[in-house]
Amino acid sequence: MISHKIPVGILGATGMVGQRYVQLLANHPWFTLTHLAASANSAGKPYREAIAGRSHLADNIPTAILELPVHAVEDITNAAKNCRLVFSAIELPNKTALQETENTYAVAGLAVVSNASAHRWTEDIPMLIPEINASHLNLITAQQKQRGWSGCIIVKPNCSLQSYLTPLYALEQAGYTLSDVVVTTLQAISGAGYPGVASLDILDNVVPYIGGEEEKTEQEPLKILGTMAENKILPRTGLTISAHCNRVPVIDGHLACVSIRFKDKKPTPDEIKNSWQLFRSLPQQLNLPSAPVQPIIYRTEDNRPQPRKDRDADKGMAVTVGRLRPCPVFDYKFVGLSHNTIRGAAGGGILNGELLVAQGFVK
Amino acid sequence: MISHKIPVGILGATGMVGQRYVQLLANHPWFTLTHLAASANSAGKPYREAIAGRSHLADNIPTAILELPVHAVEDITNAAKNCRLVFSAIELPNKTALQETENTYAVAGLAVVSNASAHRWTEDIPMLIPEINASHLNLITAQQKQRGWSGCIIVKPNCSLQSYLTPLYALEQAGYTLSDVVVTTLQAISGAGYPGVASLDILDNVVPYIGGEEEKTEQEPLKILGTMAENKILPRTGLTISAHCNRVPVIDGHLACVSIRFKDKKPTPDEIKNSWQLFRSLPQQLNLPSAPVQPIIYRTEDNRPQPRKDRDADKGMAVTVGRLRPCPVFDYKFVGLSHNTIRGAAGGGILNGELLVAQGFVK
Amino acid sequence: MISHKIPVGILGATGMVGQRYVQLLANHPWFTLTHLAASANSAGKPYREAIAGRSHLADNIPTAILELPVHAVEDITNAAKNCRLVFSAIELPNKTALQETENTYAVAGLAVVSNASAHRWTEDIPMLIPEINASHLNLITAQQKQRGWSGCIIVKPNCSLQSYLTPLYALEQAGYTLSDVVVTTLQAISGAGYPGVASLDILDNVVPYIGGEEEKTEQEPLKILGTMAENKILPRTGLTISAHCNRVPVIDGHLACVSIRFKDKKPTPDEIKNSWQLFRSLPQQLNLPSAPVQPIIYRTEDNRPQPRKDRDADKGMAVTVGRLRPCPVFDYKFVGLSHNTIRGAAGGGILNGELLVAQGFVK
Amino acid sequence: MISHKIPVGILGATGMVGQRYVQLLANHPWFTLTHLAASANSAGKPYREAIAGRSHLADNIPTAILELPVHAVEDITNAAKNCRLVFSAIELPNKTALQETENTYAVAGLAVVSNASAHRWTEDIPMLIPEINASHLNLITAQQKQRGWSGCIIVKPNCSLQSYLTPLYALEQAGYTLSDVVVTTLQAISGAGYPGVASLDILDNVVPYIGGEEEKTEQEPLKILGTMAENKILPRTGLTISAHCNRVPVIDGHLACVSIRFKDKKPTPDEIKNSWQLFRSLPQQLNLPSAPVQPIIYRTEDNRPQPRKDRDADKGMAVTVGRLRPCPVFDYKFVGLSHNTIRGAAGGGILNGELLVAQGFVK
Repeated sequence: MISHKIPVGILGATGMVGQRYVQLLANHPWFTLTHLAASANSAGKPYREAIAGRSHLADNIPTAILELPVHAVEDITNAAKNCRLVFSAIELPNKTALQETENTYAVAGLAVVSNASAHRWTEDIPMLIPEINASHLNLITAQQKQRGWSGCIIVKPNCSLQSYLTPLYALEQAGYTLSDVVVTTLQAISGAGYPGVASLDILDNVVPYIGGEEEKTEQEPLKILGTMAENKILPRTGLTISAHCNRVPVIDGHLACVSIRFKDKKPTPDEIKNSWQLFRSLPQQLNLPSAPVQPIIYRTEDNRPQPRKDRDADKGMAVTVGRLRPCPVFDYKFVGLSHNTIRGAAGGGILNGELLVAQGFVK
Repeated sequence: MISHKIPVGILGATGMVGQRYVQLLANHPWFTLTHLAASANSAGKPYREAIAGRSHLADNIPTAILELPVHAVEDITNAAKNCRLVFSAIELPNKTALQETENTYAVAGLAVVSNASAHRWTEDIPMLIPEINASHLNLITAQQKQRGWSGCIIVKPNCSLQSYLTPLYALEQAGYTLSDVVVTTLQAISGAGYPGVASLDILDNVVPYIGGEEEKTEQEPLKILGTMAENKILPRTGLTISAHCNRVPVIDGHLACVSIRFKDKKPTPDEIKNSWQLFRSLPQQLNLPSAPVQPIIYRTEDNRPQPRKDRDADKGMAVTVGRLRPCPVFDYKFVGLSHNTIRGAAGGGILNGELLVAQGFVK
Repeated sequence: MISHKIPVGILGATGMVGQRYVQLLANHPWFTLTHLAASANSAGKPYREAIAGRSHLADNIPTAILELPVHAVEDITNAAKNCRLVFSAIELPNKTALQETENTYAVAGLAVVSNASAHRWTEDIPMLIPEINASHLNLITAQQKQRGWSGCIIVKPNCSLQSYLTPLYALEQAGYTLSDVVVTTLQAISGAGYPGVASLDILDNVVPYIGGEEEKTEQEPLKILGTMAENKILPRTGLTISAHCNRVPVIDGHLACVSIRFKDKKPTPDEIKNSWQLFRSLPQQLNLPSAPVQPIIYRTEDNRPQPRKDRDADKGMAVTVGRLRPCPVFDYKFVGLSHNTIRGAAGGGILNGELLVAQGFVK
Repeated sequence: MISHKIPVGILGATGMVGQRYVQLLANHPWFTLTHLAASANSAGKPYREAIAGRSHLADNIPTAILELPVHAVEDITNAAKNCRLVFSAIELPNKTALQETENTYAVAGLAVVSNASAHRWTEDIPMLIPEINASHLNLITAQQKQRGWSGCIIVKPNCSLQSYLTPLYALEQAGYTLSDVVVTTLQAISGAGYPGVASLDILDNVVPYIGGEEEKTEQEPLKILGTMAENKILPRTGLTISAHCNRVPVIDGHLACVSIRFKDKKPTPDEIKNSWQLFRSLPQQLNLPSAPVQPIIYRTEDNRPQPRKDRDADKGMAVTVGRLRPCPVFDYKFVGLSHNTIRGAAGGGILNGELLVAQGFVK
């Protein structure tokens, strides 16, 4: 499908998620990594030096990438020369500054796939999980027209909801409308970046609080499940989500304990399991390189999914579910799990990038 | 109040909970530890030898106790000579066998306070949390009469519900009736005994399943909140609980994420916090030695309670709550925490024993 | 080199190391996995069922292997029909019984590559690290002749010494003879099998004792570094090793802190690093499928190697060293690390099997 | 002995060690905590507020202390008004600045007991472990005279050596002179302060490097074991120490694996154990409040000492040793353990303070 590899870049390349992007893009069939950008104090150094002492991943990074120079995030000129698409894993405390930084890339004609939360609620910017709302990409035309951008911006949602939202969507796709969801997440430390969670806060401990996480977990699904209006997404109504977010001493892999209530028609357990096992969507149909073959894997064992044992399912891109059982208060309970820095961050971002290419938004 | 110390024993003295009983009884103002019993292969050994290589607690056990001989659990004759009250932490796979073993102690005139689950649903045996349903002790008279026992049996409930049931009860006591509870527990490894959870199953991992635990967490509160009929407890109706139980890599301390809905009258956040902070009950009025001064402690920090930092509150006997906030699906959400082998096991058992003494059931 | 794949089996296929063998043999270029054996209570079940609830590895095992029937270890007849080489990861408390079990396979004409310790000190059985003492394979001829075996047995050494012995050997190969070694190991929990180390023993803890491990760490290197006599190995003399073995809360990867003294000629730090970096041996020359390209990798960072970050170097088959510095008491200090269930167990066993094939001992 | 409690302060009161000082001084029989100092951004706040969100210890701190105002470390005037002795747990990157800060307190007439490393090698400042070199306190007279101080400064050594130096000293006191020590430490994360070690660096991992720690571990014992000259300590000669320092995922408790060689006379194992068990020193003779009754506890179990099980021995002030056995390279091997933030930091500092009082240097 792709005759020449598309040159891509990473903004925030030295952080936890940035390093994961590097790892996943190192041998990508469609993309070639040609541009690395980070904050001013990394700029000018070779990547090897910029991550010295803060390298997180076991996998060795190819020498060619280790020797790439790191540019400043503000250096749009070089980015525009070097690549056509950037994956943004920038961390900036100021939301407006982050939006403006990403905007400059779109102005310069680049496609931006962002992990950052700054633009998630911008009206004309789609928040995408490719298996769920690929149709929201249509917003890009309006976005470019309104803003006069030759490039574009799309964002991916928070990592905390990746473990259960696709399974919920699969049920709705199968015709079972949900009304209420109570979800408790047990989230891995890699989700907090590096240095992130202090070891003294999490060893032999659990922290029942992650700033801003519950709000994102409750609200972002409504935009993702929303419907396209002319120039914006109308958030899904009639569905209420309540979230309890916890940090647990796990390296990678967010787990979600979910209780759900259906609006009218209630599926049987077998109908639910079938809806999950058979679920396929556009990324599978397009055979995108990072798409999991089976997006939702149901494990029949009593005690699965588990973070360490299931996070790497289908190279970390599948969601694993299990323990479907009746809920005394609602209709059903289940457990979901996904890899937070692959499916929930860099891998999910790359899948979004692949979708942009396959749909003709990046050439 | 107590002029002579009451001689007490421990059944299952070598296990995780048994060792905690030993630690807590070592310097008890009312009880003196005179009898230790365990399975046949420990019987005949001094306690020091019976726990060699499987000693779990940092605190040193007094030499006098280390030298006590361990008896077989079946040796009722010596138990009856040695003590008047036994704390049972027996683990037996067969429920009937466990019931019969405990019954023989009651037949022999001893009071039995059991941690085991075997008798929890026996009709004429009260399942007690002293702050909640001390009145259920009245069942003992019927129990002794019906069964011809000179002794008696009371049981304490599962450790998983101690972190949230007293806070719920305090709200109901304050006049706010609950209808629905969805609770997700994050439970410590010490709850599984020793050797219990294999390290390969829990390091860098979470296990979203504990056999039988969700059923206990959902059902036992209904008996505890039930009302006394002539010879039995009528379980509470109109309250539904749904539980998700997880094992996490924490040594001690069960945490619960709770969403609650009230039946009619809904308290304000301040009314809830006041109901908790001001809650006192019979153990406090009687000034029982193991009773926490303030049974429910509300922490105002965003990120509390936490197992390692709050489990030892008031010597491990208080329940710590925090993070009270609105629940989009129900009315409120909060987090509760208690020490599972103190409040939830040995400490809770001893408080029950103290209540038996204070109420005249053990003399 | 290999025109038809060689059928191989695993003895003790359901344990920790057995599962790692299955994983590594699933797509092996020379071997095809045709026979699985385990203890009597697994025999007769498909492998899927035999490991249900005790599956340790994240990687999915191919369905064809999951459906293989598990045989009893005692069932030599079927083993001899099914395969020509077996990897033994049997755990039996009785050393003689273990030796006799492995012998029956050699009698039946199979080559046995054993992870077990039973035969490590049997005079005519070589204990092999292919990069160090491949020449000891010559002992097989004597072994077969003396015992009348058509098959043969070779063993691999304990996992605890793999992190530092190849680096020490590389120095001696470069002409620098060692006289004294003091080594402290920090060993992963997977080395103890499953269920192995109880989580209550290792979370927020370290155990400074592993039964029998220090003796193996001190003695086995002397046989490996020994010289071939007619029918046996004469252990290396003039080298003394002292070991302190600790269990630490790490999933995989044994780390060794090593102080070394040379006999006469002392290399410079650069000579040592060069000896390590340039070290290649027979497995590399023969291009064995599991041989690491570079058996010893020197990391220049201050704080490496680390178990989680370096254990998977070259698919878990390389040894990573670092922190070479002067030792005030001896000559030098350094840190070594290897993956204990890959290089130190199943991967090391497979490399031995490949060497047997390449040298013509298995056809 | 003490008719009025002595008012004391803590410099660096909000850090990890500072909080431990607060906890240990809260109910001290000789000292009353009257002054808290920290960096400028804590100054002016009540202690409660200054530690909000970075409170590490489970034990509740008395309300009276939580309400104490925090002063700036530079505010000597108030310190001199408020107290007569300060415990310094200041962390400053610049060694000279730290020395000068502590000096200003001595100039102002206060006694300073410092945990910081800045003054450890200052010639006229003693580095004290009260059980070992209380006689070095005589240096204070010279110090005061030379410098014109009405106050004084003493320091305590690094936490890494507390687990094995007292046991080594006890052997020398018993007449067995040591010549060589190779020690590998497994050190707890609390030793790095807060936030200190990132969880991503230590969960499922070990870090074989702690900046500057090996040098301290090798050199500081020589000053402690040194002999008094007129105005300085002559470091011990004839003893060489080599250290390997590792960070492990343990909350509190440093463990040391030690190999030792004696110069001439070699004790038997029983002589060693007796030397340890019977060792008593000046703090025990003076019955100082924080002195452990038995400074060195020998555990006979194969697998002790262990950090979680032994760190709290005698309120965290005793050193626990075990596993005495022959060393093939040197004479003996053993394992030592101590609580790094109690014996190795705040508790050790307070014991030094008590010694100053008992010896008349603080009145």
